Amino acid sequence: MLHRVSIKTRSRVEFQNITRAVQEVVDSSRVENGVCYVFVPHTTAAVTLNEQADPSVVEDIAEKLDALVPQHGGYHHSEGNSPAHIKASLFGSSVMVPVDGGRLVLGTWQGIFFCEFDGPRSRSVLVKILPDSR
Amino acid sequence: MLHRVSIKTRSRVEFQNITRAVQEVVDSSRVENGVCYVFVPHTTAAVTLNEQADPSVVEDIAEKLDALVPQHGGYHHSEGNSPAHIKASLFGSSVMVPVDGGRLVLGTWQGIFFCEFDGPRSRSVLVKILPDSR
Amino acid sequence: MLHRVSIKTRSRVEFQNITRAVQEVVDSSRVENGVCYVFVPHTTAAVTLNEQADPSVVEDIAEKLDALVPQHGGYHHSEGNSPAHIKASLFGSSVMVPVDGGRLVLGTWQGIFFCEFDGPRSRSVLVKILPDSR
Repeated sequence: MLHRVSIKTRSRVEFQNITRAVQEVVDSSRVENGVCYVFVPHTTAAVTLNEQADPSVVEDIAEKLDALVPQHGGYHHSEGNSPAHIKASLFGSSVMVPVDGGRLVLGTWQGIFFCEFDGPRSRSVLVKILPDSR
Repeated sequence: MLHRVSIKTRSRVEFQNITRAVQEVVDSSRVENGVCYVFVPHTTAAVTLNEQADPSVVEDIAEKLDALVPQHGGYHHSEGNSPAHIKASLFGSSVMVPVDGGRLVLGTWQGIFFCEFDGPRSRSVLVKILPDSR
Repeated sequence: MLHRVSIKTRSRVEFQNITRAVQEVVDSSRVENGVCYVFVPHTTAAVTLNEQADPSVVEDIAEKLDALVPQHGGYHHSEGNSPAHIKASLFGSSVMVPVDGGRLVLGTWQGIFFCEFDGPRSRSVLVKILPDSR
């Protein structure tokens, strides 16, 4: 009931569109109606919904986050990736998307993005479908 | 099982209290105990819980967000609404509220706010009640 | 089905690790598989997942939030705690964690933190376990 989707990121900061992979989990679950829950088991990455039509949107999001939470800035944590931890909590570790007729109910422009803030790394997201009770 | 609530916003940035409309969906569902899930199918709007007693609270939130993510600032996305996309991911596309005895379980000061970041527009939120399994 | 966990905070800003208390609710529910939902019924506090191994991580998060949303800055709300309200919406009022075999499915470094932004206060979080339907 808990499906793992593997992700490989190639940059320090990267928004990877995982909409198709999540829809495939919905397909394999054969659930017609319910909610799809996507969870990130990492502390320097996140998941968000945003526009997938124009890739410059997530580019703008990533750049603005870098400006708000700069790479260097007197952090205590010795690993040097405190900015990634901060961004992870700002964006959050999970999203929920309605499922109707076996399809993710996304707005016209919405896609599901895995947000890498401390890559490149091998990552995973966990996907669970909560079917409507009958 | 998926209810659409229509919203009309009148400004570029506006926090609209939708608590009563969401409670009405709970009422019509006749669910006594469970969780109420509110989803925004837009990429330049969000939903959040915050204080509904003093309207100056959401005014402060909106102004601070505008200061952190200013309207103009060298964005790539040609439509000019990148700040709205960034705010949408900072706040998130859904909230969950417990339901107990047919009522939303909100703290004393909490209300549910639709957050318009690129209005005025006709918008909608999707509401789904997840009843406790028996 | 809705469990209240009481929390006592000791500072204005404090990230309190509540992972063990939440796991205890999962234990007492005897649910083997499902999702654990943690809800904050306050408007000047939040809940987030982040690293629990090195306490300097949440220290960095708290300090950066204070820098982004300073205590004083021309806010309208007369109670003087607008920064706490703004941080609450940036971080969000709930998290969801998968449950598998009766255990919270957290990543290696992840812990659940109650985020106090306007303490010290007596607080509570509500925890609900959504069991998989059979």
